[in-house]
Amino acid sequence: MSLLVVGSIALDSVQTPFGSTADALGGSAVFFAMSGALLHPVQVVGVVGDDYPMDRLERMAKRGVDLAGVSRAQGESFRWKGKYSYDLQNRETLETRLGVFADFAPRIPPQFRDARYVFLGNIDPELQLSVLDQVDEPTLVACDTMNYWIQGKRDVLMELLRRVDVLLVNDAEARQLSGDWNIFRAARWILQHGPRFVVVKQGEYGAVLVSGDGIFYVPAFPLEQVFDPTGAGDAFAGGFMGHLAATDDTTSASLRRAMVYGSAMGSFAVEQFSVLRFDELTPDEVRLRVHAFADLVRFDLLPVGEGA
Amino acid sequence: MSLLVVGSIALDSVQTPFGSTADALGGSAVFFAMSGALLHPVQVVGVVGDDYPMDRLERMAKRGVDLAGVSRAQGESFRWKGKYSYDLQNRETLETRLGVFADFAPRIPPQFRDARYVFLGNIDPELQLSVLDQVDEPTLVACDTMNYWIQGKRDVLMELLRRVDVLLVNDAEARQLSGDWNIFRAARWILQHGPRFVVVKQGEYGAVLVSGDGIFYVPAFPLEQVFDPTGAGDAFAGGFMGHLAATDDTTSASLRRAMVYGSAMGSFAVEQFSVLRFDELTPDEVRLRVHAFADLVRFDLLPVGEGA
Repeated sequence: MSLLVVGSIALDSVQTPFGSTADALGGSAVFFAMSGALLHPVQVVGVVGDDYPMDRLERMAKRGVDLAGVSRAQGESFRWKGKYSYDLQNRETLETRLGVFADFAPRIPPQFRDARYVFLGNIDPELQLSVLDQVDEPTLVACDTMNYWIQGKRDVLMELLRRVDVLLVNDAEARQLSGDWNIFRAARWILQHGPRFVVVKQGEYGAVLVSGDGIFYVPAFPLEQVFDPTGAGDAFAGGFMGHLAATDDTTSASLRRAMVYGSAMGSFAVEQFSVLRFDELTPDEVRLRVHAFADLVRFDLLPVGEGA
Repeated sequence: MSLLVVGSIALDSVQTPFGSTADALGGSAVFFAMSGALLHPVQVVGVVGDDYPMDRLERMAKRGVDLAGVSRAQGESFRWKGKYSYDLQNRETLETRLGVFADFAPRIPPQFRDARYVFLGNIDPELQLSVLDQVDEPTLVACDTMNYWIQGKRDVLMELLRRVDVLLVNDAEARQLSGDWNIFRAARWILQHGPRFVVVKQGEYGAVLVSGDGIFYVPAFPLEQVFDPTGAGDAFAGGFMGHLAATDDTTSASLRRAMVYGSAMGSFAVEQFSVLRFDELTPDEVRLRVHAFADLVRFDLLPVGEGA
């Protein structure tokens, strides 16, 4: 039940009201892998420059991440520098240097081609399509995207959508893609263009799963301390796909559970800079938090006739 | 188990992308009463001018609203005129004419003074306090407020908080009141200043109940058509308090159920202009929607040992 992610491997420099970090592990593939590996081994395909701190990448291997698909190219690694507002509600990109990522052409190693669960991180939809051409017959493919591709490569993105099972986007992306500001109409539009499931991530408010089977809502885990929101969406995807791969179950009930795992892992991601929170995280901590979600939404209606 | 509301009775002129209405029934007491009365009879205290369309007010009586506390004063009724943005996310107040509401001094009729459940709509906290001085021994008092009072009458508002059981505010108000942008820390701050329960309303994202017993999250009901968001918060309060009064149960389990009734009634409010949606709403429709919330958040975790 192998789980494959293709995405960016970056060095992030982030300023928050609580401190800053420089050249820390980042990128969609890194957040996804460190989160997902808590639930199921993850195979990573990506590229780093010759300046990437390989010792830190290799720490990921100890957590169940297979780095055989990470190639090292001559040049600089992908670097992102950003700054959050005092309330973490807004962030400003101070600098993006693509480096070797500009020429990234994912090559899936032979031993990864039978991957059953595939997550296409937010990269050029042409590259996302090329990944699908290289995998045999995945059970479930999920992808992310962003405003840049929705605007600039719309046709390719629409072709990609026809080949994926789950689209994970935030609400602004769902609106931009569909041209509809109502999230539920936007999700329905997306369902009509390929995916069987749409996950709309709403940050601190949680996430919504929309499919032909109905709508499922998972709140964000209530945190009194949020340290760094970077990577929360990819950590969500890691928890979501990690649960599906671990159980090899793509029924609606399983997708709902996967949403809860996604929200739980997203909440861990924001508790520290970079992927630091995942370094020491235990399966027991994950289980505890996942179970806490049940209490967060639990209510019992009165039998008909008693009260209103 | 009488349920009392004190608040504004207004004539609203609202422009949305879908149409506009002029001098329609509005105000916190009206939205609260029309919503709450679906669950339990509501007693209203408020003031209208001599231009208020009394026939329309009296239609409320047919729905279980006791208008004995509504006084008619010489002068103009409270009028509010507002305009929503294309996506209903923002609204602009075009005009506010307080009219007779400027001199409103709530007088609770003798037959209302034994009210067990009291909702203090968003009016001057001095008036909210004066209401509490006129009621005998309510089981549960809830109140709303707004930025204007938080800034301008903070001391009185803090005195009020010490005497209420539930504060219902939106997230911006919770932040302003506590001085903390984190919603859960803000709620904890509020709990330290009087109320036993804080309800943070988050509009299209739902609402959160915070108390010493934990945190409960209810989503907003997913709607593909939102017509007019005006009054959603007061309709939420009507459903919330209506359920508590109908069951005369203020346990945590009941408060959680009340949140679901609140969210359901808020979702009805936005489906039409003014309180029109409540005119024909049946208890069966309410029950159906409330039960739909259970499916919206339902998930079953796997027994330990099966999967992740």
